[in-house]
Amino acid sequence: MMSSSTAVSTEGRISIQAPKRLLYGPGPSQVHPRIYQAMAQPLVGHLDPYFFQVSQEVQKGLRSVFGTSNELTLPISATGSGGMETVVSNFIEPGTKLALFVSGFFAERIGEMAKRHGAEIVRLEKPWGEYFSDDEAASFIRRERPQVVAFVQAETSTGVFQQSKAICDAAHEVDAIVIADCVTSLGAMPVGIDANGIDAAYSCTQKGLSAPPGLSPVTISPRAQERLKARRLPNRSWYFDLSLISDYLTVSHRYHHTASATLFYALHEALAVVADEGLAQRQQRHKKAHERFVAGVEKLGLKMHVAEGHRIWNLNTPRVPEGIDDAKVRAYLLGKHGIEIAGGFGPLAGKIFRIGIMGPLATDEGVDSFLEKFDEAMKASR
Amino acid sequence: MMSSSTAVSTEGRISIQAPKRLLYGPGPSQVHPRIYQAMAQPLVGHLDPYFFQVSQEVQKGLRSVFGTSNELTLPISATGSGGMETVVSNFIEPGTKLALFVSGFFAERIGEMAKRHGAEIVRLEKPWGEYFSDDEAASFIRRERPQVVAFVQAETSTGVFQQSKAICDAAHEVDAIVIADCVTSLGAMPVGIDANGIDAAYSCTQKGLSAPPGLSPVTISPRAQERLKARRLPNRSWYFDLSLISDYLTVSHRYHHTASATLFYALHEALAVVADEGLAQRQQRHKKAHERFVAGVEKLGLKMHVAEGHRIWNLNTPRVPEGIDDAKVRAYLLGKHGIEIAGGFGPLAGKIFRIGIMGPLATDEGVDSFLEKFDEAMKASR
Repeated sequence: MMSSSTAVSTEGRISIQAPKRLLYGPGPSQVHPRIYQAMAQPLVGHLDPYFFQVSQEVQKGLRSVFGTSNELTLPISATGSGGMETVVSNFIEPGTKLALFVSGFFAERIGEMAKRHGAEIVRLEKPWGEYFSDDEAASFIRRERPQVVAFVQAETSTGVFQQSKAICDAAHEVDAIVIADCVTSLGAMPVGIDANGIDAAYSCTQKGLSAPPGLSPVTISPRAQERLKARRLPNRSWYFDLSLISDYLTVSHRYHHTASATLFYALHEALAVVADEGLAQRQQRHKKAHERFVAGVEKLGLKMHVAEGHRIWNLNTPRVPEGIDDAKVRAYLLGKHGIEIAGGFGPLAGKIFRIGIMGPLATDEGVDSFLEKFDEAMKASR
Repeated sequence: MMSSSTAVSTEGRISIQAPKRLLYGPGPSQVHPRIYQAMAQPLVGHLDPYFFQVSQEVQKGLRSVFGTSNELTLPISATGSGGMETVVSNFIEPGTKLALFVSGFFAERIGEMAKRHGAEIVRLEKPWGEYFSDDEAASFIRRERPQVVAFVQAETSTGVFQQSKAICDAAHEVDAIVIADCVTSLGAMPVGIDANGIDAAYSCTQKGLSAPPGLSPVTISPRAQERLKARRLPNRSWYFDLSLISDYLTVSHRYHHTASATLFYALHEALAVVADEGLAQRQQRHKKAHERFVAGVEKLGLKMHVAEGHRIWNLNTPRVPEGIDDAKVRAYLLGKHGIEIAGGFGPLAGKIFRIGIMGPLATDEGVDSFLEKFDEAMKASR
């Protein structure tokens, strides 16, 4: 692909000839065509007035999808895991007591990061794929009285959607702030930052928002901002230090890092696509596609791993039936139809499929067309 | 720009209408048209075989522009400052003795990050815009006997290109490893990782490589890799932990973060553009454009801030003449001609212009056309 010739090619020939995939995995999801057009718009500098105009509108659009009036709502220049490290590193100092709800991979990742930033961690654990009841959540928090509580709202490794309200209420009783991982929910499900009382959340651009990866939206409540100001030590990370990033993007516009106007264009367009459809309509479309998927996959004889009423709408996790090798199914779908789905990992390796029905594919046709190929792949993999 | 309507717009109308800038600042630089085309190629997943093929070719292309055979050469999913934090955080543990050469803003930034990661820092300082002689460099290192040495090869805040060989030789005498900031040099000047003996370097995509920002190429020598393996404690940053990132991108392909295929396409295309022209030819083109710029700007009566022979080719820093308000010149160029250049900051605020002649603009025509507008702007700002 990459020429070793020394002649300048000006024939418009490019080195990338990517296969056309149908992205039915946990993310990245199918990119909306308008977003490619937005990225083709000419790059401007990271201190250009036009960049700050786009950035301000992006912040406004993010407040809408997060369901918040938090002033401090902006994209971090890294992927979703960078957003996780941003939130963790800003609210954890050496010795901070963190109460962590663990029933999946991304909760473990929060713990790993928090440890590196010096947290003292207490955990409430359940098997991967289960959720925490209101009573379990509240009694854990009341017993431990932590300074910070963290949980995963939409656990991408299991398909569980964790209700947030009881966790936040109990945390606020003991004066803790609450961190929520909204990587998979944002843009496809109601996240409800303000309605639930979540203090600090992060997400990504490549799942419910249907843009390419590269930025991580975060939102921080005024209450959590007070906590930031009261830190004893600076953040161990300079790149993820919210006081520096927010100064650059929202206050003085003083240079911190070179934000990518191209990625901001993509996110801006993604948010415009959401606004054009209407956020509530978009969420309902994902719910409807989810219900159609569940009905269809159950008709094929598969069982959903997560209890009804606790499932992520845009990421389905049916169990792999006895006698089926999930790797074969995935390879068949990719090889024959260019369809990407994912398998489980950790304790769920080989036990679940992870199938995202998101963005432009979250339609009746997107579900039916997928189920047809999926059925074919299962039959071919027995 | 962002509609609040609830109707789905499918007319291909997009929310981004960016102004066409001519990017003559220190970066981002003008994006090569082929790179926009590459980003329009369909997104694939971060675990897709095609993604790993692109990633592998990107690594190969980066080795070429870095001038290295280092196996561990890859892009970090963050901007140049994220690359800086990657390199600093992986080679600094609490108590590590760092010898730092400081004569500009980005050296200060290395120091700030290293402090947060626990370094004990000794500094050799010079006024912004000066370089370190071989003797000064060697005697500082021999006297201090640090574990890590860090310097900025191309100091974007001043325009100085620092020679690397004497620093690396002295560092190796005392068994230190050497970190170099190559953010502005890569793709436009010979970086010479192996020829100089640099152990760990980071750069960006939006300067000498003419791609949008979003990734940070890094390269690590086998010697430095040994140092990584001998760490007592894990990196304080999980996101920038090279052992996890390299496992994902080069060894097991185990998921670490969701790398952006779109940004990898852009970097791949940028490296293909370099290969098509030929790296040596490209560097010579930048040198020639630099010499033409210097001759032209001196003819306009300006003096270069950096001594001849120590200047970055693709980033020129003429002094602001007496009686000229640099902010007025910059505003005139942006408002009248859509041309972005930058001013100085810190001790050089109001004292220098920072003018990048890079990528597609590093031609006779690109220089002459700029100087004409620059002259006009200076006259209009008296």
